[in-house]
Amino acid sequence: MKAGILPLIDRIIECALEEDLGAGDVTTSATVDPSTKGEARLLAKEEILLAGIEIFSRVLNRLDPEITVDYTYHDGDIVPSGREICTVRGSMRGILSGERTALNFLQHLSGIATLTRLYVAKTNPAKVRIVDTRKTTPGLRVLEKYAVRIGGGFNHRFGLFDGILIKDNHIVAAGSISKAVAKVNANAPHTLRIEVEVEDVEGLKEAINAGADAVLLDNMSLEEMRNAVSIAGGRVILEASGGVTLESIEEIAKTGVDMISVGALTHSARSVDISLEVI
Amino acid sequence: MKAGILPLIDRIIECALEEDLGAGDVTTSATVDPSTKGEARLLAKEEILLAGIEIFSRVLNRLDPEITVDYTYHDGDIVPSGREICTVRGSMRGILSGERTALNFLQHLSGIATLTRLYVAKTNPAKVRIVDTRKTTPGLRVLEKYAVRIGGGFNHRFGLFDGILIKDNHIVAAGSISKAVAKVNANAPHTLRIEVEVEDVEGLKEAINAGADAVLLDNMSLEEMRNAVSIAGGRVILEASGGVTLESIEEIAKTGVDMISVGALTHSARSVDISLEVI
Amino acid sequence: MKAGILPLIDRIIECALEEDLGAGDVTTSATVDPSTKGEARLLAKEEILLAGIEIFSRVLNRLDPEITVDYTYHDGDIVPSGREICTVRGSMRGILSGERTALNFLQHLSGIATLTRLYVAKTNPAKVRIVDTRKTTPGLRVLEKYAVRIGGGFNHRFGLFDGILIKDNHIVAAGSISKAVAKVNANAPHTLRIEVEVEDVEGLKEAINAGADAVLLDNMSLEEMRNAVSIAGGRVILEASGGVTLESIEEIAKTGVDMISVGALTHSARSVDISLEVI
Amino acid sequence: MKAGILPLIDRIIECALEEDLGAGDVTTSATVDPSTKGEARLLAKEEILLAGIEIFSRVLNRLDPEITVDYTYHDGDIVPSGREICTVRGSMRGILSGERTALNFLQHLSGIATLTRLYVAKTNPAKVRIVDTRKTTPGLRVLEKYAVRIGGGFNHRFGLFDGILIKDNHIVAAGSISKAVAKVNANAPHTLRIEVEVEDVEGLKEAINAGADAVLLDNMSLEEMRNAVSIAGGRVILEASGGVTLESIEEIAKTGVDMISVGALTHSARSVDISLEVI
Amino acid sequence: MKAGILPLIDRIIECALEEDLGAGDVTTSATVDPSTKGEARLLAKEEILLAGIEIFSRVLNRLDPEITVDYTYHDGDIVPSGREICTVRGSMRGILSGERTALNFLQHLSGIATLTRLYVAKTNPAKVRIVDTRKTTPGLRVLEKYAVRIGGGFNHRFGLFDGILIKDNHIVAAGSISKAVAKVNANAPHTLRIEVEVEDVEGLKEAINAGADAVLLDNMSLEEMRNAVSIAGGRVILEASGGVTLESIEEIAKTGVDMISVGALTHSARSVDISLEVI
Amino acid sequence: MKAGILPLIDRIIECALEEDLGAGDVTTSATVDPSTKGEARLLAKEEILLAGIEIFSRVLNRLDPEITVDYTYHDGDIVPSGREICTVRGSMRGILSGERTALNFLQHLSGIATLTRLYVAKTNPAKVRIVDTRKTTPGLRVLEKYAVRIGGGFNHRFGLFDGILIKDNHIVAAGSISKAVAKVNANAPHTLRIEVEVEDVEGLKEAINAGADAVLLDNMSLEEMRNAVSIAGGRVILEASGGVTLESIEEIAKTGVDMISVGALTHSARSVDISLEVI
Repeated sequence: MKAGILPLIDRIIECALEEDLGAGDVTTSATVDPSTKGEARLLAKEEILLAGIEIFSRVLNRLDPEITVDYTYHDGDIVPSGREICTVRGSMRGILSGERTALNFLQHLSGIATLTRLYVAKTNPAKVRIVDTRKTTPGLRVLEKYAVRIGGGFNHRFGLFDGILIKDNHIVAAGSISKAVAKVNANAPHTLRIEVEVEDVEGLKEAINAGADAVLLDNMSLEEMRNAVSIAGGRVILEASGGVTLESIEEIAKTGVDMISVGALTHSARSVDISLEVI
Repeated sequence: MKAGILPLIDRIIECALEEDLGAGDVTTSATVDPSTKGEARLLAKEEILLAGIEIFSRVLNRLDPEITVDYTYHDGDIVPSGREICTVRGSMRGILSGERTALNFLQHLSGIATLTRLYVAKTNPAKVRIVDTRKTTPGLRVLEKYAVRIGGGFNHRFGLFDGILIKDNHIVAAGSISKAVAKVNANAPHTLRIEVEVEDVEGLKEAINAGADAVLLDNMSLEEMRNAVSIAGGRVILEASGGVTLESIEEIAKTGVDMISVGALTHSARSVDISLEVI
Repeated sequence: MKAGILPLIDRIIECALEEDLGAGDVTTSATVDPSTKGEARLLAKEEILLAGIEIFSRVLNRLDPEITVDYTYHDGDIVPSGREICTVRGSMRGILSGERTALNFLQHLSGIATLTRLYVAKTNPAKVRIVDTRKTTPGLRVLEKYAVRIGGGFNHRFGLFDGILIKDNHIVAAGSISKAVAKVNANAPHTLRIEVEVEDVEGLKEAINAGADAVLLDNMSLEEMRNAVSIAGGRVILEASGGVTLESIEEIAKTGVDMISVGALTHSARSVDISLEVI
Repeated sequence: MKAGILPLIDRIIECALEEDLGAGDVTTSATVDPSTKGEARLLAKEEILLAGIEIFSRVLNRLDPEITVDYTYHDGDIVPSGREICTVRGSMRGILSGERTALNFLQHLSGIATLTRLYVAKTNPAKVRIVDTRKTTPGLRVLEKYAVRIGGGFNHRFGLFDGILIKDNHIVAAGSISKAVAKVNANAPHTLRIEVEVEDVEGLKEAINAGADAVLLDNMSLEEMRNAVSIAGGRVILEASGGVTLESIEEIAKTGVDMISVGALTHSARSVDISLEVI
Repeated sequence: MKAGILPLIDRIIECALEEDLGAGDVTTSATVDPSTKGEARLLAKEEILLAGIEIFSRVLNRLDPEITVDYTYHDGDIVPSGREICTVRGSMRGILSGERTALNFLQHLSGIATLTRLYVAKTNPAKVRIVDTRKTTPGLRVLEKYAVRIGGGFNHRFGLFDGILIKDNHIVAAGSISKAVAKVNANAPHTLRIEVEVEDVEGLKEAINAGADAVLLDNMSLEEMRNAVSIAGGRVILEASGGVTLESIEEIAKTGVDMISVGALTHSARSVDISLEVI
Repeated sequence: MKAGILPLIDRIIECALEEDLGAGDVTTSATVDPSTKGEARLLAKEEILLAGIEIFSRVLNRLDPEITVDYTYHDGDIVPSGREICTVRGSMRGILSGERTALNFLQHLSGIATLTRLYVAKTNPAKVRIVDTRKTTPGLRVLEKYAVRIGGGFNHRFGLFDGILIKDNHIVAAGSISKAVAKVNANAPHTLRIEVEVEDVEGLKEAINAGADAVLLDNMSLEEMRNAVSIAGGRVILEASGGVTLESIEEIAKTGVDMISVGALTHSARSVDISLEVI
């Protein structure tokens, strides 16, 4: 988890609990006494790469600070199917009322980490980075990008404020790639690298000449990407982008690009199967 | 969209924009003049069942109230691949800064609607309802459940506050199904039906005798479900639940249950492909 | 207090303290040293049914987590006039600055519980439920409905989201009672019972035939209510509603209806007299 | 309504709507088409002093800005029983979903204004002010104090931040009335008058000598109050306080005190009867 | 710090941290291990009057509750240049991520206190008060006014709600000073004194006759102020205001006015130099 | 103003108005009728570089959307002393209640812009950038950094999330400059440049060799800076930092560094003198 991120995460958890609990858990209120204590085990129902276990705990603790969680596995661990991830002890009301929200975070984040791992496994991490995009679920970006890192991926910019990516519409508005880069150079903080999205080799050349630090190769063929790598000759960071799948990534990696961005990591990962069983 | 839901949706949009925009869109600020106007088309890159097009507009209008959107398709329409969904006109800054957030909502919600439609298509809607679950993405439930309805599905309870579902742990805490139902009857508002989750036929019988209105058949075999339908004889609503897939749903529907709940509708739908092209 | 309701209550307390304290307690700041400790007793100045004593504590603890409260009575207890409810110990600044806000909650909620008890005492709780309405003070519903339960009453739906109540205007919009019930059946979650508000026996019959689960008898005479009970024959829950008073409730209860809703419980309860005396 | 208060009122309305609407109005969503327009009349079911009619409108407009309200009466008007207060036109969904919340504000505030008027009518406003207290409903103080003004009453301080009231516990902490006044003089802004709560004539004398601007006579007998008026001789503002009722206020006013504070105005006013009827 | 102000301060700190940390501290996350502990000293790089040291701690503790701060100096102490103010121990991540925000508060507030002290030192505090204004930095008023008090100054009203100051435009709207004072007397809470801003001796006389409690002498010459003091003869509090500087304040104080308000205390104090050095 | 920044600015304005207005403007409420309209002129009382005039308008419009502002000058214009900046027309209540908050923003931001201009004027903008720091007023950074740009300065990173600056403590934690740069390279998004803070020429050399993009020269002498420029030879961006004043900046600029960061721009700018005069 990144340094200094706790207050932001607390706000996300607060919203999620408010959404599920609203005016209160009717069923648990009627059937479970406030003084009842209990114990539950969290079980992986399939092999997963665990991400978000501290979020899981934090959700429960927002409802009852005295609930304790003993971890068998931690974020970044691969949990085999059927294994216990952690044990939860404390007020049954807190556990039952928070269970679904806590699990929704954990299953979603572990789903992203588990999927990212599959993409990373197709490539040589020493040579190419798998990076995420801004195609995330609204409101959960900080957690989803964390899950990508747990999965062995890397983060692209977080939002529109911490990275410059000059796209086709910016280029049109500025007049040309060179003019767009010049405008950014003249206005933006020096702490941000300048990346330009190009659709062909001409664009790449213009971007390099304009002084771009990185170039996003948009939907290029393998042939074009290899050509781009050769032209760039290490002068800019090359990012392959566009419709990357588990089937295509291996070949893309071999073209020699520096990074491959994969929207599917965050916008199309399925939730993994984890269940909470009261003992 | 449900009546009275606007203030809640505005809060969700506000959070999503804050997340992506933070201290401002550096690239657009440097390259696009505040006075530049433009026009863009939203294109379906695959066949989709559209859901969330008004959210899409609302996101852009939060950044610039003067942006206008002309709809070719509306929520609930099937948009063939390659077709224009709508046209957007107005300030280029507003369009470019809001584009990704607006699309993230639309692609996510249309993904859920499109997937729901696949499930619904496997069944006879006159006989069985496909319903969602609380396995939603934290913070987006009101929108995701809307997308399920657009897809032809139905909503289960929204949260812990608007539906009673007595699960195994509630039963253990109360002592038995009968005692749990009695406790709920004695405490909960009469406006809520009582649903009991059971794992076998004995549970079903006890639930019916205790006066349950609905019974969730948890992970039962097709055989068990058929048996349950026969036992229930229409006295309770029967909900099939547990690991339902596109492959298994057809057979489940044939057992005669009243509804089938599918967590995957919301926790594992992939985002559909939609792009915004500036003209 | 319902399970999972803590975060919501914290937000209400936060708003209430902000309202009273604004830029700070000028008088206490000038006259009481931050290190001064003290002890105070909470006294019932009349016989009350106590409700909200934990809210009282929670308000003080928001200002100073080290203030302790020792309870002589708990929520649900009848406190005779003149008796000590609890003892408060800790920072005098915290106690004096939080006193009024804490008392405002406690006196208001105990007022509702005490009044509810009077209504309940007029009836046989084994045969008829006294239920609240949505006629609550804006912002305090979750607490006010809790106080009704403490007083021996029951909760009707919390808001527009957790109960279906088809009123005259919905019937007009849908075309008829039957059509309205059919529309609700076709759209709303199965977890919610369907209640219909009717003004006469014809309405009751149509509602029963349409499959309503409950019927609200709006402003009916005792004669009409008795007739309704006879017609319903236990097929639907019958709720009497409209201008119920402490004088009229006994006779209404005798008609055989299942529940009587009383708006006055929450919209017109007077505050009870409780004072905090520093020792 | 006080100048500059709009943003605060908007926050209160937002909270109230969120409370009632949560995840949406299920009944209206199912039975009323989004395009249905309608008209409704607001009727006084008893004689009332109207307060809060603009809040009523504002609530509806938060749900649908196109709803219009034509006023027959305005705040401060006495509306005879049976008369139409205003006409509402616009989207039926907006009207039906916002009706209860809008009415809860209006009935509560008009209840306070109507009760205040009764108290004021017992006295000669040219000679004595009826003032409110901080015994208000948590979260609604700004509106409740507005309703008191509409009813012909006056506001005491709003909270702990805009008025100095030295009570017994402050006196104990400071050592004496004189010391407490001295401390306040030495610390507090000069923009605030200094009021001291006293229980007997000795206290009054000490407060006057210490330079107090106002003195609250706590639970004094009529005899003591007359004595206090005589002793004060106009040098300080005298406020009578403690258990004031509609029965006792007339005699209290005759003692010659400058103001009488009545907690019941805000903590025990019953809601008045107003109904919205769709035409 | 004023009694009851903690929740407000927490909200200010939360906003400040959110502003600086956004999606997380990239540098610290990459270079400092979560388990690394450390110790740092806070050093005064010039002589300062310390104000805000508890805010400094509270910022760090929001990021990590286990960070401890040992104070060598407290608010109100004069810290010589080069001396250690306090020692901080705990998680290096928390210290480094919170350092700048914590220092921004401390340097800003100590700057105000240090400047205030200079103004106060030019006058005889027993005879004249140096008071602040509403010319504060948006969002930080409660802290800035606290720093003024630490510096030996006094607070004027906090905002528009806790003090009456009738300015020229109010006088124009009301018709005359007398009419404005009469209107305020008839409407405003008796807990607030009435101050009138005047530009000449005629205004002063009218204000006194109208019953004002205080008069603000706006931009008067020393001669005029002396005259005003003579005319007032102690009947009203006299406040000198308008372009007061360190050069002019001594002579103004000698005119005999009761208080001098100085906008520069809060709107133009420079930040003092304090640094955090990790040991 | 940066693209997409409106929602953030609205939140800042909302907080500022809440702070000043609290429970309402007592003076204006008592003296100015809600229907009174008026006109006012905003006047520069000294020569200023205008920044924040749209914030000024937006504050007033939050209180009354019908207030109009006609601009004579815009942000970035130099307004001579005595000249009218704009004319404000509309409800006098809105103008008087919002005046101080609106002016506090405008005077503060114009103060920063005016000071920045002085620094920029001492240098050749074609050769060296004057940049701001994170030493801003908590809560106002987005506006203060905007004012710096208006003044001709440039922005450094906004917060800890959109720029990498490896400081001494990060270096200590990582082991060396090389190791710190390597760690950042291995973890941080590629969209961020890597800047290293060094204290001597050895540090500079190590940073360059490690692949830093920029180097901050911390408190170096002019001699050292000249040496650094010579060593760097254009391979990295050089930023001079530490105690820069209007007196020292000219010589620093001549050393050939690329940028000079000046904390005083935001932490010690005095407010400029602007007044609103009602006509």
